Amino acid sequence: MPSYTPPLRDMQFLLHEVFDSVERLKAIPRYAELDADTVNAVLEGAGQFAAEVTQPLNLSGDSEGCTLDRDTHTVTTPKGFKEAYAQFVAGGWPALSCEPEYGGQGLPFVANQCLYEMLNSANQAWTMYPGLSHGAYEALHAYGSDAQKQTYLGKLTSGEWTGTMCLTEPQCGTDLGLLTTKAEPQPDGSYRLTGSKIFISAGEHDMAENIVHLVLARLPDAPKGSKGISLFVVPKFLVNDDGSLGARNPIYCTGLEHKMGIHGNATAQISLEGAAGTLVGEPNKGLQAMFIMMNAARLGVGNQSLGLTEVAFQNALAYAKERIQMRSLSGPKAKDKPADPILVHPDVRRSLLTAKAYAEAGRALLVYCALLVDEHLYHPDEKRRKQANQLVALLTPIAKAFVTDNGFIATNECMQVFGGHGYIHENGMEQFVRDARINLIYEGTNTVQSLDLLGRKVLGDQGAALKLFGKEVAAFIEAEGVNEAMAEFINPLAFLADKLTKFTTELGFKAFTSPDEAGGASVDYLRVAGHLVYAYLFARMAKVAQTALAAGSTDPFYTAKLQTARFYVARLFPEVASRMQTARSGVANLLDTDAALA
Amino acid sequence: MPSYTPPLRDMQFLLHEVFDSVERLKAIPRYAELDADTVNAVLEGAGQFAAEVTQPLNLSGDSEGCTLDRDTHTVTTPKGFKEAYAQFVAGGWPALSCEPEYGGQGLPFVANQCLYEMLNSANQAWTMYPGLSHGAYEALHAYGSDAQKQTYLGKLTSGEWTGTMCLTEPQCGTDLGLLTTKAEPQPDGSYRLTGSKIFISAGEHDMAENIVHLVLARLPDAPKGSKGISLFVVPKFLVNDDGSLGARNPIYCTGLEHKMGIHGNATAQISLEGAAGTLVGEPNKGLQAMFIMMNAARLGVGNQSLGLTEVAFQNALAYAKERIQMRSLSGPKAKDKPADPILVHPDVRRSLLTAKAYAEAGRALLVYCALLVDEHLYHPDEKRRKQANQLVALLTPIAKAFVTDNGFIATNECMQVFGGHGYIHENGMEQFVRDARINLIYEGTNTVQSLDLLGRKVLGDQGAALKLFGKEVAAFIEAEGVNEAMAEFINPLAFLADKLTKFTTELGFKAFTSPDEAGGASVDYLRVAGHLVYAYLFARMAKVAQTALAAGSTDPFYTAKLQTARFYVARLFPEVASRMQTARSGVANLLDTDAALA
Repeated sequence: MPSYTPPLRDMQFLLHEVFDSVERLKAIPRYAELDADTVNAVLEGAGQFAAEVTQPLNLSGDSEGCTLDRDTHTVTTPKGFKEAYAQFVAGGWPALSCEPEYGGQGLPFVANQCLYEMLNSANQAWTMYPGLSHGAYEALHAYGSDAQKQTYLGKLTSGEWTGTMCLTEPQCGTDLGLLTTKAEPQPDGSYRLTGSKIFISAGEHDMAENIVHLVLARLPDAPKGSKGISLFVVPKFLVNDDGSLGARNPIYCTGLEHKMGIHGNATAQISLEGAAGTLVGEPNKGLQAMFIMMNAARLGVGNQSLGLTEVAFQNALAYAKERIQMRSLSGPKAKDKPADPILVHPDVRRSLLTAKAYAEAGRALLVYCALLVDEHLYHPDEKRRKQANQLVALLTPIAKAFVTDNGFIATNECMQVFGGHGYIHENGMEQFVRDARINLIYEGTNTVQSLDLLGRKVLGDQGAALKLFGKEVAAFIEAEGVNEAMAEFINPLAFLADKLTKFTTELGFKAFTSPDEAGGASVDYLRVAGHLVYAYLFARMAKVAQTALAAGSTDPFYTAKLQTARFYVARLFPEVASRMQTARSGVANLLDTDAALA
Repeated sequence: MPSYTPPLRDMQFLLHEVFDSVERLKAIPRYAELDADTVNAVLEGAGQFAAEVTQPLNLSGDSEGCTLDRDTHTVTTPKGFKEAYAQFVAGGWPALSCEPEYGGQGLPFVANQCLYEMLNSANQAWTMYPGLSHGAYEALHAYGSDAQKQTYLGKLTSGEWTGTMCLTEPQCGTDLGLLTTKAEPQPDGSYRLTGSKIFISAGEHDMAENIVHLVLARLPDAPKGSKGISLFVVPKFLVNDDGSLGARNPIYCTGLEHKMGIHGNATAQISLEGAAGTLVGEPNKGLQAMFIMMNAARLGVGNQSLGLTEVAFQNALAYAKERIQMRSLSGPKAKDKPADPILVHPDVRRSLLTAKAYAEAGRALLVYCALLVDEHLYHPDEKRRKQANQLVALLTPIAKAFVTDNGFIATNECMQVFGGHGYIHENGMEQFVRDARINLIYEGTNTVQSLDLLGRKVLGDQGAALKLFGKEVAAFIEAEGVNEAMAEFINPLAFLADKLTKFTTELGFKAFTSPDEAGGASVDYLRVAGHLVYAYLFARMAKVAQTALAAGSTDPFYTAKLQTARFYVARLFPEVASRMQTARSGVANLLDTDAALA
């Protein structure tokens, strides 16, 4: 069975040494009292919870799955899930970055980011139960009426209730404009909702006393397409004026999907049979409100794959040290044993370092994004709020698609380290691969992310957000350009930054005359942009490590960081050479294929 | 549930138009009477069997899996498997390319190759039951005594009995030198075997009346390591002199693995408890004999992924035509519908064409290899026999690792076309991914293949085999170099052929001084070599298609072939740019990482 050690040292390195988070966040009034010790203590406690409480349930949860009683529409989650959730609530973890006015602890979003990375490493399926609540919290916080906030936010903060996002229907996933669930206005100002939803994660379970469904539906007079969608809050149990639970609302789980992975999470088919709900925000502006949830969820999905990358790496490394098989090509290394540990083989190291490099860069990206989210929401300087928003909007599709693509690559490499034993359920590695696979799909497939990046975030604002990020990168290149020791990290970064600017302009012209050109290049473009971001983050991390070593530190952590950064530049970054070629090849080789795809 | 249409047209194109197989095989006396109509009729019947008999059992077989009765050591295979196997035997399919003297039909190996591609598309887990028998047949045919041949070959040919390969033990997979199963000589010249084997595919089942295990074990006086391994044949039921079945031999299935995929195949833990066996070939030369099976099995594994690539493509294409979601970026295409079929989106086409191109090139490679196997075994000209052997030895690691890596890429792309529905078991796409995943591992992991290619097959013979293949490629480039219409296919091929030669020399020098350098470059090297082979095969296929079109053919098959070849060159072949960079980066970025991998 796999094990897990929270990567606290690397988190602290990012938070305190690379991003100087506490000082940066102190510029925000609500975090004025923040101190590093508190953050560290919180992360330590979070890591302990993940490693001791939910991680031991991961493999068994996968084997057991969820079961639905069709008569009562109740779902039983795997053994131990409910008790672990009770501990989570008792520990106050759902409240970590919620507002104090609803009972939250008011810690920065970046603390929640680190908590959830560890929960995802431990048990992605379990983590999705509380994980979905955050999106519901944020959507209601941003768009809910006072009454809705009063009714729901406290219970979501405490974790007594959990939340869901009910978007997908059988005929629509990406294309929400096609959805048909109906909301009929009632004389009392509420609505009755009727329709069928599918793929609702954590859609029904036995872990909390109520479930707060956020549901997209159409009003009777709504315009067609995506401009006629409204958002409703539809609780599993109606809530009385005094906050106590009332009647069961007819929003029922009618089936659970049989999936490739995340078996411990109930992926529900939901039938709304005249269920009572209230409107969130304005009529027909539901997509806008839903995007609050969606953007948080997209970062959350990147975080899921980051968690899986880390835990897969840890277990593959342990196996590679322990499993002996064959001799090193350059002669025996463990002469006292009948064979060498497989860690001696260069290609085993390539697999391990791929996962390690992607974990460390992914963590850096998600911490960087989390800090931007805090600044976007709460920074006193309006310009900084706006810039933070621009940057996080640009980086969100990368954090979702690049981290999850890399997570699938990494978990597969780690599984491969186990040879045939990797294919066996009990060793846990194949579960990481199956769980990681969904992350490339949900909350907008990775192709949808790439179109969002290239079409909306880059070309859509004439490259303004990209220029903003480019300025930050250029400043770093400028500052380190004369530092010979940093050349190995700065040169490839500078090379790609220059190329990407030209390439973006070129693509912009092509897409202007033929919009399909963007669709033919977007996936490659996202991979190239992702490597620019990772090369930048690795250069920043390498700079801190070099400085520490130059100052006399003997902490092997810094040497390890430089080795991983070097591996990244030499072995992963070169992907851009091929991706630039294919992105530039034009869309004709995809579209002039009617005979081939007849 | 997925469907399957045998790709007979593409097989016939390769057999008759590209490789002129029948004429080529007629040079071999045993195939002197071969004609195209017979081959086509056999393939049609084989395709019908696969599509109608085993394909409908694929999804249910995955859900159901195999069950072991621990008391009786008997395994029950999924519903319908046994009956399908009876039909397979009744149809004479196991005998297709076996020798007439043992009841075989004496058809060329290439016919069997096509039969098995279709069986693998239909149901990889089922196909492994008869599939393993072929290796056993070939090892006994090559190394068995007359008595062993007499006892076993007829029953393996008819399919009344099936075969296995018992190599792996808990402490050894890649490193067979570590195996400990013992064989004690008996006064009558037979042996008693004792030990534990794991991961034995088709190791126990209810489909045939006897199972012929080929087992690696050590004689009491055997040298240590891989030079002390002998091969034994150990039947499940002893065989009386008259061919009837005798006592149950104590070679028992003691457990079945819980695996990521191929659930329908019984992956057995086997306990040998003084089981009676006879020696195959010479003492301590078991690995040599086993390599007969292993080489066939490696081509067979490539064939498994080819089959999965084809069937995943077919189902993803059908879905992309039917599923409507969003509008084309260049404006609505299906104006009568509320959205366009997703086939209009360039990136959906990229996914589909990736699978199609890898299926067509993989098929070309495996047909090409199968023809070489026939020539190697039976060609009257000794020089041709030797050359065919050199070429197939060179291409086998590519056919195993490149086709299976690509098959994993392709099945994942096809699953992704289904969006969230791809993650759902009932749609069948996620099963293709799970089944395809084992192919990168068993019969020598893909890293082992890459070391075999670079270390043994290329550098090991000073590049002689590579030069032989290079001469064939060069002749084709030379012949087509003046043909302007072929330039788009010839130019990249010529470019890479030149690069690879230089790169191989460079690597040879590096590896001579530091053997680890080969280990640090081999996986990238195999990918580059694989693309050279595919670029060559696509150029040959394109040439035939262009010639047919120039001669006035209006068959859209040829247009489709050119479109796929163009896609390959533009979108898949450019991987070599990155791979050359990473392969050249040297092994230090992998080995100087002790701090990172502490």
